[in-house]
Amino acid sequence: MSSLHNDYPWTTHSGPIVVSAPMLKIALAPLAVSVSAAGGIGFLAGGFASPELTQHLAEAAELVKASNIPLHNGLLPIGLGFLSWGTDREVALKALQQYPVAAVWSFAPYQLSDLLEWSKAVRQISDNKTRIWVQVGTVAEAVEVAKTTKPDVLVVQGSDSGGHGLSQRASLMTLLPEVRDVFKKEGIEGIPLVASGGIIDGRGAAAALALGADGVCLGTRFLASSEVSIAKGYQDEVLRAGDGGVSTVASTIYDKVRGYRDWPQSYAARGVANRTFLDAVHGMSEDENIAMYEEATKLGDSGWGPEGRMTTYAGTGVGLVKAVSPAGEIVKSIRKEALEVLQKSASRFQV
Amino acid sequence: MSSLHNDYPWTTHSGPIVVSAPMLKIALAPLAVSVSAAGGIGFLAGGFASPELTQHLAEAAELVKASNIPLHNGLLPIGLGFLSWGTDREVALKALQQYPVAAVWSFAPYQLSDLLEWSKAVRQISDNKTRIWVQVGTVAEAVEVAKTTKPDVLVVQGSDSGGHGLSQRASLMTLLPEVRDVFKKEGIEGIPLVASGGIIDGRGAAAALALGADGVCLGTRFLASSEVSIAKGYQDEVLRAGDGGVSTVASTIYDKVRGYRDWPQSYAARGVANRTFLDAVHGMSEDENIAMYEEATKLGDSGWGPEGRMTTYAGTGVGLVKAVSPAGEIVKSIRKEALEVLQKSASRFQV
Repeated sequence: MSSLHNDYPWTTHSGPIVVSAPMLKIALAPLAVSVSAAGGIGFLAGGFASPELTQHLAEAAELVKASNIPLHNGLLPIGLGFLSWGTDREVALKALQQYPVAAVWSFAPYQLSDLLEWSKAVRQISDNKTRIWVQVGTVAEAVEVAKTTKPDVLVVQGSDSGGHGLSQRASLMTLLPEVRDVFKKEGIEGIPLVASGGIIDGRGAAAALALGADGVCLGTRFLASSEVSIAKGYQDEVLRAGDGGVSTVASTIYDKVRGYRDWPQSYAARGVANRTFLDAVHGMSEDENIAMYEEATKLGDSGWGPEGRMTTYAGTGVGLVKAVSPAGEIVKSIRKEALEVLQKSASRFQV
Repeated sequence: MSSLHNDYPWTTHSGPIVVSAPMLKIALAPLAVSVSAAGGIGFLAGGFASPELTQHLAEAAELVKASNIPLHNGLLPIGLGFLSWGTDREVALKALQQYPVAAVWSFAPYQLSDLLEWSKAVRQISDNKTRIWVQVGTVAEAVEVAKTTKPDVLVVQGSDSGGHGLSQRASLMTLLPEVRDVFKKEGIEGIPLVASGGIIDGRGAAAALALGADGVCLGTRFLASSEVSIAKGYQDEVLRAGDGGVSTVASTIYDKVRGYRDWPQSYAARGVANRTFLDAVHGMSEDENIAMYEEATKLGDSGWGPEGRMTTYAGTGVGLVKAVSPAGEIVKSIRKEALEVLQKSASRFQV
């Protein structure tokens, strides 16, 4: 049992806590609430805190009521994720005041110190009830955030993740145990680590636990959930792609064609390689690439695919995603399989 | 218990099989024999099969005798690794005839089909006693090699590895389970998978087992073993460096300054970032960089370090390597810790 269970009492104790990532425009109320209803922690993507955020939270509140998950301390039993560098804090705080949530997740500030004031503000308007989650990608970031922001949870993201992440990183294989060791050495205690990046099923979850995680976060796997807000062309491409170490690429070109120009410079985003990427590699100008992307947006679902131009953000584990399932089933099967894998792996070598 | 134990009967059954990687010029007879003497499988670096190979094997034979490890089928209880693209096959086969070994490991052919004839030749001169190991880095490579070369073992190398590897790859987190799943789907059976890339201690080994490995291979960890053939400056830099996701870089510049110009184009090599790398990034010509590298070779141990120019090949797990230990102790502690980690992780969530 992890200390995470205390702070999020609706979570199930019979396996690792499964978290769904706040994927921009994709992880909305139905996905977040389904994950929490299954005993996990679902995150709604707050993105930059656009005016529609309140509607998404209102929908989440309705779904929570319908799902019979009890409120915890008056908080919605879901989390809310923000892209730190571009968040409209006024809109975000107003939404949080109207719909207090169990956790707020911050990702990708211009400087780590930007997280301080923001975290204080979130704690203040919630009477210290809302928990602060911060996502990091290196040992140095983990230590600095732990010492300054003092978050309630650190999400440690390895190099296999889909979508945005630091362009230079280790995978969870080495990042997670090194964060653990350095925390021990520096006397940093009491911050649970949630592993993210390359976890698709119970095997990845079991591996993350062995590496030192207290909980596991999945993004790519939930792209193929029944409740996700995703175009069919995108989801079909997730189901099709395999061998993600070579079929996906970490690049900034997908941001550029989609009009996101202000990401902190140390970030890139991993997606399935398509014409946008290949044309950029072969020297097409950004302007032409953007124009062709905009044409492709008119094609509907056929705009995705290796010869298409619509972006398929996904992690290297995309080849392990082969079917669409209800989010709650995904959560439950990962919890169950992770334990089975650990027990089976341990028993295999006992003579 | 894994089927690996049958083919390498000196290996210990009480935990996962621990393999030491055939690191060029670094993993020689003392390291390889110490690993096998501790119940693992030590690999001697055959490299390109230079004339000194026979001397290294003669030394290994002496050390095996002194260690009282029984020969298996008349074979030395160690493996021999070759860089496929540059191997002098005549020299290699002659050495193998004089000193038959338990396993031959091939890595980095220009084309995967190059492995076929070579594997046949090795099998033939050993009366099918020497086992064929092939290292791969993608799902597609794993499937093609399994179907054509039909090796006895596949070494699956993830993106965290030090030294050479495919420049575009997933980490073990997703690569290993996807190879397993695709093998199952394609009906490929009976080829044990040895995981490599990012495994430093029992946590990484436990994670690899959970992800589907039958055995684990370590390189970077053995750079800090008592028996390794390494300059003190190099070893000190391995002990110093941390946060390997950012402090190491995968690049081709280290090959260039060291005079290795014929690696297959899809490969890069991961090492700690130093002046060679930074100067290359900032536009220094290759010729000047080579000249400065050659000057640095005269500096002895002070040629290493972040401001030095001597190459410190190491994986992203370099920060987990904090002390020099005898290779046998490393092997035993990984075996023990891996089991403890799996048992502890499994019991943690049982209510």
